[in-house]
Amino acid sequence: MSTALKKSALIVLSGGMDSAAALAYYQRLGYRTEAISFDYGQRHRVELAHARKVAEQFATPHRVVDLSTLRELFGASSQTDQRVPVPHGHYEDISMRKTVVPNRNMIMTSVAVAWAITRQLQNVVLGVHAGDHAVYPDCRAPFVEALAKTVEVCDYTPPRVVAPFLHMSKAEICTVGTLCGVDWSRTWSCYEGGLHHCGLCGTCTERKEAFKLAMVSDPTVYGEDHGPLGEIPF
Amino acid sequence: MSTALKKSALIVLSGGMDSAAALAYYQRLGYRTEAISFDYGQRHRVELAHARKVAEQFATPHRVVDLSTLRELFGASSQTDQRVPVPHGHYEDISMRKTVVPNRNMIMTSVAVAWAITRQLQNVVLGVHAGDHAVYPDCRAPFVEALAKTVEVCDYTPPRVVAPFLHMSKAEICTVGTLCGVDWSRTWSCYEGGLHHCGLCGTCTERKEAFKLAMVSDPTVYGEDHGPLGEIPF
Repeated sequence: MSTALKKSALIVLSGGMDSAAALAYYQRLGYRTEAISFDYGQRHRVELAHARKVAEQFATPHRVVDLSTLRELFGASSQTDQRVPVPHGHYEDISMRKTVVPNRNMIMTSVAVAWAITRQLQNVVLGVHAGDHAVYPDCRAPFVEALAKTVEVCDYTPPRVVAPFLHMSKAEICTVGTLCGVDWSRTWSCYEGGLHHCGLCGTCTERKEAFKLAMVSDPTVYGEDHGPLGEIPF
Repeated sequence: MSTALKKSALIVLSGGMDSAAALAYYQRLGYRTEAISFDYGQRHRVELAHARKVAEQFATPHRVVDLSTLRELFGASSQTDQRVPVPHGHYEDISMRKTVVPNRNMIMTSVAVAWAITRQLQNVVLGVHAGDHAVYPDCRAPFVEALAKTVEVCDYTPPRVVAPFLHMSKAEICTVGTLCGVDWSRTWSCYEGGLHHCGLCGTCTERKEAFKLAMVSDPTVYGEDHGPLGEIPF
């Protein structure tokens, strides 16, 4: 099959486990892949360097879009306002709502769709999954389905919005990604955005659980193994 | 009614006639209004200065969001790529498709919704109208309705997306805006973004027709009345 005829997919790549697995999966399915990431002023912008590493593993053209001017629109989210501490614990805790960035997924998807139209890519792939549902309204199925329907009528030749892991657990995604060859050491989850994964925030907690439940070796260095970040000998 | 209890609306304000009329209309209806505009690298960014003037007329807090980094994602649209000439003629001409900026309305609305959530504003008002439908897929009713449904489930406390002029003609909007006191000389339509309205592009053609059909005096200075722009004595 020639490159021109190959099915194509633009992966919204955060640098985390889910979107890395989505990239690996679509490439394994035979799609020609491209990737797009967003700097929206996130505290853990170190994830963007990891997105780059993941894209490199899969030899996928990767574009980082600078939306950092949006930071001040997002109010008191711990993810974009350094004055709001990142809550520790489990995703299902009510305290995790502080990590919500208002309408983040619609913003990122809408820009990804514009790029897919310009690049004539047929699919825009989101890595949202069931574990996100508890705390993030814009990761739930009704939202993703409504968003996909909106994109169907946004242009003369719109891409399709797909979320292959929408009903999977993080552990299942870990399994899929492992089978598709993801080098997990290239991925980043932690909301703190320090030198190492903190091991304590909601997304670190979920990451550790996923490897454990999937019975996959976790290559992550967690900061808690090394004491407070300031004491790490670098 | 105290300010805190007053209904509130965030107007997506382009600086053109439709959104100016929307702002005037919502204020006349008794809403507390705010406005948001976008620099997305548009050729006619002079419209942003006009948005400011319109907001000033209605004493409305106004925020301009810098999304100019998106310009290079939009491909060969005449609105964001200076190398692509702005087509002249009527909106219904096939050539007008060059003026489509891919997924522009979803991008702008998604950011406006984030700001409305942060500001706790109850409505996000879009000025899209029936005259846009011929050429812009993301101004048509099926798109706007799908978008509004998506926003309903994007957050814990989402605003409502409303488009009061969705089924009105530009002339009808001109009538409504005039009744609500819009100073039309503060508004800008022309896609060329020169010193004066060119009078020849699709949106200038539509603007002139609207005033004529609404039997409202048109205060606009059209460049064609003064010869080529270079010859205007400034």
